[in-house]
Amino acid sequence: MPFVPPEALERRAGSELILRAGANESNFGASPSAREAMCRAVEKVHWYNDPEGFELRGELARRHGVSREEIVLGSGIDELLGLFVRLFVEPGDGVLTSLGAYPTFNYHVEGYGGMLQKVAYRDDCEDLQALALAAEKIGPKLVYVANPDNPMGTWHSAANIEAFSSGLPSGSLLLLDEAYADFAPIDAIPRIDGARRNVVRLRTFSKAHGMAGARIGYAICHRKIGAALDKVRNHFAVNRVAQAGALASLRDESFVHSVVEQVAEGRREYGEVASEIGVVALPSATNFIALDVGTSERARALVAGLLARGVFVRMPGVAPLDRCIRVTIGPASERRFFVEVLRQEWRKVLL
Amino acid sequence: MPFVPPEALERRAGSELILRAGANESNFGASPSAREAMCRAVEKVHWYNDPEGFELRGELARRHGVSREEIVLGSGIDELLGLFVRLFVEPGDGVLTSLGAYPTFNYHVEGYGGMLQKVAYRDDCEDLQALALAAEKIGPKLVYVANPDNPMGTWHSAANIEAFSSGLPSGSLLLLDEAYADFAPIDAIPRIDGARRNVVRLRTFSKAHGMAGARIGYAICHRKIGAALDKVRNHFAVNRVAQAGALASLRDESFVHSVVEQVAEGRREYGEVASEIGVVALPSATNFIALDVGTSERARALVAGLLARGVFVRMPGVAPLDRCIRVTIGPASERRFFVEVLRQEWRKVLL
Repeated sequence: MPFVPPEALERRAGSELILRAGANESNFGASPSAREAMCRAVEKVHWYNDPEGFELRGELARRHGVSREEIVLGSGIDELLGLFVRLFVEPGDGVLTSLGAYPTFNYHVEGYGGMLQKVAYRDDCEDLQALALAAEKIGPKLVYVANPDNPMGTWHSAANIEAFSSGLPSGSLLLLDEAYADFAPIDAIPRIDGARRNVVRLRTFSKAHGMAGARIGYAICHRKIGAALDKVRNHFAVNRVAQAGALASLRDESFVHSVVEQVAEGRREYGEVASEIGVVALPSATNFIALDVGTSERARALVAGLLARGVFVRMPGVAPLDRCIRVTIGPASERRFFVEVLRQEWRKVLL
Repeated sequence: MPFVPPEALERRAGSELILRAGANESNFGASPSAREAMCRAVEKVHWYNDPEGFELRGELARRHGVSREEIVLGSGIDELLGLFVRLFVEPGDGVLTSLGAYPTFNYHVEGYGGMLQKVAYRDDCEDLQALALAAEKIGPKLVYVANPDNPMGTWHSAANIEAFSSGLPSGSLLLLDEAYADFAPIDAIPRIDGARRNVVRLRTFSKAHGMAGARIGYAICHRKIGAALDKVRNHFAVNRVAQAGALASLRDESFVHSVVEQVAEGRREYGEVASEIGVVALPSATNFIALDVGTSERARALVAGLLARGVFVRMPGVAPLDRCIRVTIGPASERRFFVEVLRQEWRKVLL
């Protein structure tokens, strides 16, 4: 498994976590109307879900200005990543990503026998220039870029992403993971163009919409790619409750807007606290913040200290990113609690 | 897509179905305690599901007398079938099934490039003898058998299934689809033996538990197979709501027992009505019944006539099974309605 889940941490510790701030789950919850829609859907849970996801895809298509045929639903971006790898990567094919980027993508590539090439981050950002050079060199079938980035929270401008995708060799498909797009400044998100054949955009209801446990995400892609996916995907993968919840959540724009606002406030708060205690808060366009504590030893000690207090956070897996801890930003009361524990545990690390 | 879903029929017709009796969904619904558990789970839907499904797998293991490592959860049997095909079938490998059996299995085999061999049914049952001979001949990587069978509803004894599996060539893995096991007589279901390396049993919460739209099923298999699946599966595929519902439903034994009783009563009723109107009801160990109307022309006409009345049923796809229609058995009020419409539409077919 690419991750140790918080439930496994609880089982190891024999006690429940007090705060889950390690998986970028939205502790603002799902919107009240989405929760209501999901409970209503439970009343009809004896019926299979619509395998075509017709209504939800229609709503997404309208919102993105594309056609329904350019939207593919999946049980989270994770499932979609696996499908794209299955569809495009033969054993031995080259695939490009960044060193320290989303492990589940790597998991799928390894599972299908692709050859991963990993490009180092530069200044805590995915290095588009180095990725472009590597792509030119190896002609990868897939190029994975997350914008905004996970685990660092940094981002590139829409213009840079556009230029990067245009410069990719023919035969390379860009998987642009936009899981955190809802939290990003407008000029970080390229205009959606369904007709682009070499870019797939991946979105999710797991983050700003607060529906990680429902398992629903989608790809925006060329209709030919959508049709190809339709020939191999598990058609009933996106459950009825998730489809109903996603539709309601899309329509509750003020809820998501409010979450995004509160997260921005939280980023400012954590930034101030960080500078007070002598830690560098990285700029973030996501619902988490990377706190640079200087060394991986300190980061590990801090993650362990927080966990011993029942606070779950994660840290990047590789150097030099692993001098940071990654903290999900939740509601104000949660932030007050976290800041208190952070101050105490950070003091212990410095002793 | 292997099926035309009822929602697509509704979209074509421009009106809602009055009765869904074509996909063997349980119109008894999910148990009240399962529905309550699912609504409670919705309150925490912003958290990812436990990717290890620890608690549910523990409960299933206890009930089946196996270890947790011998249980693999999936988002329905459909997903699990795809995973087993991915794991065991290389392009060109032989795979064995019955002619007219579950199309989604065939879909996965074709998707991964396996070579399907299909053995004809015999007396409306999967022909274990002919399957054994074919297996001996082609040495298939996978052999698919559903017991009880879908779409015919017939079944084999546990002893015959045991003998069949023991006689398979080494290197052939039996995928024993027991989606309808809850409805079957006890002596149709082999004793569970987790240590058997050449049998995988597939179970679901979609049928007797009334949770088709939640997407949750499981495999009971050797722990080495479970460990191999764990290296390729989509770990977060089984959503939080489904896991909570399944756990509650397992514990509400009297609900499932009552559904099974009412279905048995419905099978008797439909059997009587069938003989009154001169149609042969096949023996069934499932929550549906195959009604033999004599010819595929009649079956098609009857399916179309029922659909025009807002009643969705299906029929098998190939001869000679396609002289039947397949009707899901629901609660008493639904059965009264169905019988009335059936009598009228059958009369029209005979005109």
